[in-house]
Amino acid sequence: MRAPRIDNLQYANWSGKIFRQMRAGGLDAVHVTIAYHENFRETVLNVESWNRWFERFPELIFQGRTAGDVRLARETGRTAIFFGFQNPSPIEDDIGLVEIWHGLGACFMQLSYNNQSLLATGCYEARDSGISRMGREVIAEMNRVGMVIDMSHSAEGSTLQAIEISSQPIAITHANPAFWHKALRNKSDTVLRALGDSGGMLGFSLYPHHLNGGSGCTIKDFAEMVARCADMIGVGALGIGSDLCQDQPDSVVTWMRNGRWTKSLDYGEGSAQAAGFPKQPNWFRDNRDFGNLAAALKGVGFDVAEVDAIMGGNWLRFYEASFGGMA
Amino acid sequence: MRAPRIDNLQYANWSGKIFRQMRAGGLDAVHVTIAYHENFRETVLNVESWNRWFERFPELIFQGRTAGDVRLARETGRTAIFFGFQNPSPIEDDIGLVEIWHGLGACFMQLSYNNQSLLATGCYEARDSGISRMGREVIAEMNRVGMVIDMSHSAEGSTLQAIEISSQPIAITHANPAFWHKALRNKSDTVLRALGDSGGMLGFSLYPHHLNGGSGCTIKDFAEMVARCADMIGVGALGIGSDLCQDQPDSVVTWMRNGRWTKSLDYGEGSAQAAGFPKQPNWFRDNRDFGNLAAALKGVGFDVAEVDAIMGGNWLRFYEASFGGMA
Repeated sequence: MRAPRIDNLQYANWSGKIFRQMRAGGLDAVHVTIAYHENFRETVLNVESWNRWFERFPELIFQGRTAGDVRLARETGRTAIFFGFQNPSPIEDDIGLVEIWHGLGACFMQLSYNNQSLLATGCYEARDSGISRMGREVIAEMNRVGMVIDMSHSAEGSTLQAIEISSQPIAITHANPAFWHKALRNKSDTVLRALGDSGGMLGFSLYPHHLNGGSGCTIKDFAEMVARCADMIGVGALGIGSDLCQDQPDSVVTWMRNGRWTKSLDYGEGSAQAAGFPKQPNWFRDNRDFGNLAAALKGVGFDVAEVDAIMGGNWLRFYEASFGGMA
Repeated sequence: MRAPRIDNLQYANWSGKIFRQMRAGGLDAVHVTIAYHENFRETVLNVESWNRWFERFPELIFQGRTAGDVRLARETGRTAIFFGFQNPSPIEDDIGLVEIWHGLGACFMQLSYNNQSLLATGCYEARDSGISRMGREVIAEMNRVGMVIDMSHSAEGSTLQAIEISSQPIAITHANPAFWHKALRNKSDTVLRALGDSGGMLGFSLYPHHLNGGSGCTIKDFAEMVARCADMIGVGALGIGSDLCQDQPDSVVTWMRNGRWTKSLDYGEGSAQAAGFPKQPNWFRDNRDFGNLAAALKGVGFDVAEVDAIMGGNWLRFYEASFGGMA
């Protein structure tokens, strides 16, 4: 059987076409975002939408909750869909909702999106107060139930503190190193090293604003960046979190950036002149292009075992260690 | 007609008895807290409860929305009840709810309670990141609609920034100076001076944890502290915000401190040994004791006009300047 292939972040405009492309790309598991700004009830509606997808396409997808579900997906030729939040908004101000959400299958939660949350600070704030009083309580509760802390959009100090406070390794599901492309969302050497030293995982993003050269980034440049990260923090900490937002209308990226928090328009990583979703690089347009990544990694000198680890093996090991929770 | 008398913060276990005591104490207006941790819908329920009180006791109380309502209260021998929040939880993550709440009569909103909020930092957090991105937007919107920014429970840096950012003077509706009694909730000289210089208002608290000597604080000591504040920032910035929590069961102070943010028990200004509401000083037990405050202020040398200003005139002037909002 081929090595496991996992994409640890997508937020597409879901369709049967995309689920078929996941199969064409050989994806055994995909972590999908089910909340950007949604509160508890709104996120439940998103779960309901997913339940309808699972009901319509049982031969292609099913809801994943454990590492065992990735194995089941491989055995049955389907893709296991794991839920996650890019913002703690689905738990609102209620720590009891962490366990409720774990019961509904949420496996990842960012402690903040771009702004300050009740738990931590986002990378777009001017000042970073680190993990708040509620944040410490929520981290302990996430550790207890087996929900992974994701700091992809969080500010540096908050991220370092989360790594320190959490009794479980954390994830940066979708970001790239700042040494390769300076973006607020990409991560400093300090964060990458702390992540690697603590057994955490970095998922490389294919979202153009996170790529050196944007939409024009070359696959070789990308693969060489992965190799530098492997030298820095070890192959075992690396995976893919493509941040693929396939087929989404531009209104969706406006919603991601603005939610309900501002009356003026925030352009995030874009600009008034380029407010929409950026164009994907031509070597990573959709789920069918994961083979291109594997080939490029081989091309910069990774051996087969290393390529397999980065393309899914590392995430699978991390899932095994993380989703157990309460014994 | 007697000078206006206003208490700019109470959170009692409301009853006909208390409304009659308000009348006995000569109170023309009381700012009442209608949210500690409640979200939008829960706070609407609290407004519904108030609507029932207004319906049951129209001869004693009615909802106040403008400075004119204080005059109406005096002319009709009733107490105008003004709504406020001790936490931005009623606007959740939605800036559009500021105007909605102004429409429902909310006149004051704290940008944080004791913890970090989406807008600012509370006084119990280890680090203070100041006003967040959403906080800046919300301050501008509160300024626009005519809702007063209250920083009673906020951290020092957040408070100073709110004073600086807000185009309208802000209020610290219920707190005392730290120079008199060092408590996390009491305010530094720096904050008091910035507040006074900007035309803001300080409401003196009668909550024992904010008093020098706690429940045993003497009224003379309290009045002398008011005199020191007058010397420091001027009589015109001073009023009363008693924080009276009359007839509340101890479960309520546990709720105030813990909301839904923690699974362990936070004792706030209390302790495991003294977890409940502290006993009020014997010279300020309920609304009938406002006369004691006026007499004590006279006793430490304030003239009649100054006593009147502190007991309500200053708040009335502040209401006139603040609740106008959109022209």
